[in-house]
Amino acid sequence: MSMKWISTLLLLQFCSYFHSGSCGKVLVWPMEYSPWLVMKNILEELIQRGHEVTVLIPSSFIFVDGSVPSDIKFETFTTSINTEQLKIIYNEFISVRMKMGPINTCLAYSPEIENALVVYSSVWEIICKEAISNKRLMSKLQESKFDVLLADPVAPCGELVAELLKLPFVYSLRFTPGFQVEKVAGGLPLPPSYVPVMLSGLSGQMTFIERVKNMICMLYFDFWFETFNEKNWNKMYSEILGKPTTLYETMQKADMWLIRSYWDLEFPRPTLPNFEFVGGLHCKPPKPLPKEMENFVQSSGEHGIVVFSLGSMVSNLTEAMANVIASDLAQIPQKVLWRFDGKKPDTLGANTMLFKWLPQSDLLGHPKTRAFITHGGVSGVYEAICNGIPMVGIPLFAEQHDNIAQMEAKGAAVAVEFKSISNTVVLNALKTVIENATYKENAMKLSTIHHDQPMKPLDRAVFWIEYVMRHKGAKHLRPLAHNLTWYQYHSLDVIGFLLACVATIAFFVIKCFLFCFHKFVKTGKKKKRE
Amino acid sequence: MSMKWISTLLLLQFCSYFHSGSCGKVLVWPMEYSPWLVMKNILEELIQRGHEVTVLIPSSFIFVDGSVPSDIKFETFTTSINTEQLKIIYNEFISVRMKMGPINTCLAYSPEIENALVVYSSVWEIICKEAISNKRLMSKLQESKFDVLLADPVAPCGELVAELLKLPFVYSLRFTPGFQVEKVAGGLPLPPSYVPVMLSGLSGQMTFIERVKNMICMLYFDFWFETFNEKNWNKMYSEILGKPTTLYETMQKADMWLIRSYWDLEFPRPTLPNFEFVGGLHCKPPKPLPKEMENFVQSSGEHGIVVFSLGSMVSNLTEAMANVIASDLAQIPQKVLWRFDGKKPDTLGANTMLFKWLPQSDLLGHPKTRAFITHGGVSGVYEAICNGIPMVGIPLFAEQHDNIAQMEAKGAAVAVEFKSISNTVVLNALKTVIENATYKENAMKLSTIHHDQPMKPLDRAVFWIEYVMRHKGAKHLRPLAHNLTWYQYHSLDVIGFLLACVATIAFFVIKCFLFCFHKFVKTGKKKKRE
Repeated sequence: MSMKWISTLLLLQFCSYFHSGSCGKVLVWPMEYSPWLVMKNILEELIQRGHEVTVLIPSSFIFVDGSVPSDIKFETFTTSINTEQLKIIYNEFISVRMKMGPINTCLAYSPEIENALVVYSSVWEIICKEAISNKRLMSKLQESKFDVLLADPVAPCGELVAELLKLPFVYSLRFTPGFQVEKVAGGLPLPPSYVPVMLSGLSGQMTFIERVKNMICMLYFDFWFETFNEKNWNKMYSEILGKPTTLYETMQKADMWLIRSYWDLEFPRPTLPNFEFVGGLHCKPPKPLPKEMENFVQSSGEHGIVVFSLGSMVSNLTEAMANVIASDLAQIPQKVLWRFDGKKPDTLGANTMLFKWLPQSDLLGHPKTRAFITHGGVSGVYEAICNGIPMVGIPLFAEQHDNIAQMEAKGAAVAVEFKSISNTVVLNALKTVIENATYKENAMKLSTIHHDQPMKPLDRAVFWIEYVMRHKGAKHLRPLAHNLTWYQYHSLDVIGFLLACVATIAFFVIKCFLFCFHKFVKTGKKKKRE
Repeated sequence: MSMKWISTLLLLQFCSYFHSGSCGKVLVWPMEYSPWLVMKNILEELIQRGHEVTVLIPSSFIFVDGSVPSDIKFETFTTSINTEQLKIIYNEFISVRMKMGPINTCLAYSPEIENALVVYSSVWEIICKEAISNKRLMSKLQESKFDVLLADPVAPCGELVAELLKLPFVYSLRFTPGFQVEKVAGGLPLPPSYVPVMLSGLSGQMTFIERVKNMICMLYFDFWFETFNEKNWNKMYSEILGKPTTLYETMQKADMWLIRSYWDLEFPRPTLPNFEFVGGLHCKPPKPLPKEMENFVQSSGEHGIVVFSLGSMVSNLTEAMANVIASDLAQIPQKVLWRFDGKKPDTLGANTMLFKWLPQSDLLGHPKTRAFITHGGVSGVYEAICNGIPMVGIPLFAEQHDNIAQMEAKGAAVAVEFKSISNTVVLNALKTVIENATYKENAMKLSTIHHDQPMKPLDRAVFWIEYVMRHKGAKHLRPLAHNLTWYQYHSLDVIGFLLACVATIAFFVIKCFLFCFHKFVKTGKKKKRE
């Protein structure tokens, strides 16, 4: 084997050989809730492979707790926003979204939701400005000589920090509203005829009317974000970078996009070489349950259990709603484990047990589990997919409607509209997914699709982050579309030019024809008359 | 670990566990020249992993020799075409294409080349009909219960055999003219603004005029193939399948597309989940050279060697052209190994040695190799990319112009137009790629890109073929675009509907306005006058 091949092989093994401390230095721009929970899996794997990971966090933050002992380093910077304000903003955001339903976000002008988005965005704008103007922080980061920055575009500013520190950067994201960032900054082709835009609440299988809705959603998001960014982020980015630029122009420079989805969750759609679909990277084989919980599960006998959780952002329901659901649950032969933080419902059956927290992934991997009642957050849906568990989806906000719509279209879930819940609604849905065997079969099919990949999603995510570190970027994987203006991208200049050519030729042909006609035919007639 | 996870793992390891003879049965529709040479690598790997491979071949065929002992089984069927006729047709095809240059194929109507395409296509039509009407053959294939069929769409009929035998099928292909099949049958989005269509001879970096050329090429191929297929293949497929259908509709059912390209050769462009880019899957670490050849190579000292080959389809040049090139080669300090089958040129230098056959891949992997003079066939270009060797490209026909244009745009090759070769043209090109260090640097960059993938191209190709066997197809990876008509795909019905809505609303608004205007304003005026 020649030296060239050996050195190439050595290069590829880079971080498997040097496990002795620091083979790469990774900086992470902060993010909250489920983006952070998934990111943590990637960071832990990077640390396992010997990389050094530093996470930036504002002094007030909800989900990332820098004080908990961990192999992750935390770099805290002062912010004027306090945790209580943050919580209020997030809760406001959720409650507005729960009121709306998915279609309303794009089919009707909604000052309420747009206001919530503006507030959410302005929080990140403040955090961004405070990080960047913090000279001590920025010079410490500069001196640390990181190799790559990780960020989620739903929490903007990561790309700006990367630009200022001259670092390559990798995005990890589930979605942005209407796939705006993926499309405009990432260059991803998203034909509205068969790719439902995010927050439309549609699945990949669309009727004519649904395709009309999808088109309207797309146009709505295109227009809304264009004007919103222009007034806010574009101005700020231009000021800080000292040149006229935009948020999307800065985001465009991302070296790799790790999308937390795959063809088990979504229907196949066009992608690009610098997009990796790593949905379900947090799925792990189930660990044994706590003894007491295992006893309760085993007591279910052949009927098995139902797992019920509405996620980390919403653990309370109104008392009335909780009573309706509890009385439904009391009527099934399965035992139910319910993650619930409120007052114990009066109608709670003997088969139902309430928990403040559930080892959800381990429970979904338990052989006794028959169904999962979920709000449709991507993490939970993936845990169900990985373990082949059929779902009853009660989507609440964000992309939960979209996730459940996809699962329903793939025959692995029944969707229940939150506002429509009354007696027997949840009961009937549960009976359907448990008793109709096709739901289990379809869920198992999705599980097989998920597990049968050339490389596990987490390994792929880490591979591409290490790749960007090794090559100091991955510009050679970005489509050249980024060098074109929007009218060049859509070939409007070329079409215009060709039409002009055709028109010119047509003009001259007609002129020639008329000239000949006048010259020969009319002159001929005149001569005849003479 | 639960049983579910263990069984999933077992499933994934399927063919690593059962190496004992036949874990899958693979049928291959015949193909010629380089498609066959690359396919052989895949087939050998499949056999290595325990699968049984059967290749169909017509009794007269050029490249695939069923009589050579091999682990591949051959199933021969009688055809009325003889090998000599086939050779004449192929040579005719090549000589026409060599006369044309790439742009002529799409920028001017060319009866000569279209005639060559028609003859080529009719040969495959005859082979197809003879295979399908061969009852003994078809019932033998039916009884053999294959798991998958492999084919290259440049040799049509594989998809028809798969349809008749009810088999899932996988395509392996470099390209079809204008990416027609990939686009129309595969559903691949190919924006003409930054994706050069095949046989346009353009690279991914296009000027305005080149984008105009690309658009014209695209329209030309769209139109030409539409009418050509309608007259020929569509009619035949409809007759055989006993229902109105088309070639592309049958091709659309492909479960997986293995494209013999990657982002080392091409510039990044949109792809789909059922498309895998496995270019360079035939690259292997170099084996030692025959002793005499190694001695000649070593005698080159620090100057190293140049490898020169114009591929398997063209090994002869005119005497005059050979003399011009030989005299150029005589002037360089490197030793030259030239694959040449004709009369020894009078001007041949002492530094140049002629060979009827070269171990090209091993030579390109030799540390003494400085440059590669190539016709730009994809196999040779990939061997140069894998080993980081800069090229002088003398493209002759088919996609060779495109390959060399891409290599030139990436700074790893200098292109020489075959018809423009006169004294010092090849010499200057060679000097450039050898003496200007950036060519070597760029070639090495491409080599790194090629080798640094999550999984080797050959392993990926085999993975997806085994995947299709395991799942009896991969329909869940096909975009739903295939269920739409062309006007639905482009959302023309939706746009039409929305415009009609807008027009209707506008109509009523104007009507109301006019009504009010007449009612109040005019009546008011009248009253004033009264």
